[in-house]
Amino acid sequence: MNIKIVCFDADDTLWVNEPNYRETERKFAELLSEYLPAEDVINELYKVEMQNLSTLGYGAKAFIISMIDTAIKISGNNISSNIVNEIILLGKQLINKPLELLDGVEETLTELFGKYKLVLATKGDLLDQERKINNSGLKKYFSHIEIMSNKKEEDYQNLWKKLKIAPNNFLMIGNSMKSDILPVLNAGAYAIYVPCDTNWVHEIVDFEVPESDFFKKISQIKDIITEHML
Amino acid sequence: MNIKIVCFDADDTLWVNEPNYRETERKFAELLSEYLPAEDVINELYKVEMQNLSTLGYGAKAFIISMIDTAIKISGNNISSNIVNEIILLGKQLINKPLELLDGVEETLTELFGKYKLVLATKGDLLDQERKINNSGLKKYFSHIEIMSNKKEEDYQNLWKKLKIAPNNFLMIGNSMKSDILPVLNAGAYAIYVPCDTNWVHEIVDFEVPESDFFKKISQIKDIITEHML
Repeated sequence: MNIKIVCFDADDTLWVNEPNYRETERKFAELLSEYLPAEDVINELYKVEMQNLSTLGYGAKAFIISMIDTAIKISGNNISSNIVNEIILLGKQLINKPLELLDGVEETLTELFGKYKLVLATKGDLLDQERKINNSGLKKYFSHIEIMSNKKEEDYQNLWKKLKIAPNNFLMIGNSMKSDILPVLNAGAYAIYVPCDTNWVHEIVDFEVPESDFFKKISQIKDIITEHML
Repeated sequence: MNIKIVCFDADDTLWVNEPNYRETERKFAELLSEYLPAEDVINELYKVEMQNLSTLGYGAKAFIISMIDTAIKISGNNISSNIVNEIILLGKQLINKPLELLDGVEETLTELFGKYKLVLATKGDLLDQERKINNSGLKKYFSHIEIMSNKKEEDYQNLWKKLKIAPNNFLMIGNSMKSDILPVLNAGAYAIYVPCDTNWVHEIVDFEVPESDFFKKISQIKDIITEHML
């Protein structure tokens, strides 16, 4: 292993994100409880999000528009102005929610800083992500920040080209098998998987990757330090 | 003048953007014509956009949410489900509108390519902008593409740091005095202003900059070539 760049995912790897979305989703389902049970509302929302993905992409603004689309659909195009207004307020609360760092993040970054070139690679809305990075107080650790519209193999290859690095000098650390781990392993780089309790169904893949020289799974980010993985 | 990097704005400098927003705005005002005259609807929309700017940022998704917010406000929180639905459809049409290059853009880039390092620096929604760049067929000319959440002086300074370039080796070409010209001139770089017919009121500044060694105003992008400015 000759790692030169250690790259971190952001949402749910460095700070809490998905639980905030799930909380917003629960409140959204309550607003629509006269039409459908919560579980069905959430399933409908996910379908609408997938239909909207190519047009709207990821992030809180796409989520707001998909919630409104879902409300229109579930109500048979008869949703009240008040509920639409409440949905927008829920979405703005989600955007403005104070940032909460995950346990051990700051210690881990402090320990790795100076030993490796640290990079942040996150997917989502540009403004959302920049705001979170600025509010996190973690910006000082990273020599490069990449906000990506997607995290497929080719997106990582573009990142490596930009960073002038070979895949076998690159380690990715993240909580999403689909976005942080599999595309990176497929392209010949290293990956450490730190699952979080809450995952968006879109990010879930239903198979396990066996541990190898290229892939480790840990239960919390500071295991990287305490288990001397780097 | 020792220009090494020529940097282009994208929306309304390389391709049509603002007229599409204005067309969407007109259709939006028609949807709300039972409440207010078109001009007042558009003024209210602009106020709401400014209130939402720090939370939602720029781009089509923010524009959709602001249109819905405005409709709720103008109707006294009594907007019909059907109008909300129509607003979302207008917004998605705006996002999916085919890209139209401005006159002379391709010739200008072809002529400058290889002589200078060409950079694209654009403000707005990440997915929107990536889609436009991919659809434009212009990606091949640019050695670096920067999608920024803002274009203030410090944002350009960050860009120069990233590109390892001094301001006096950098020329910015764009249609917005506020975003493309003034911050760049203030920081000691060069700028060429190519006004477009339609400008968003938020981008309009009400004073003229006199021409100098650092600043020129042209009427169309290919003047850069035909008038041998570079």
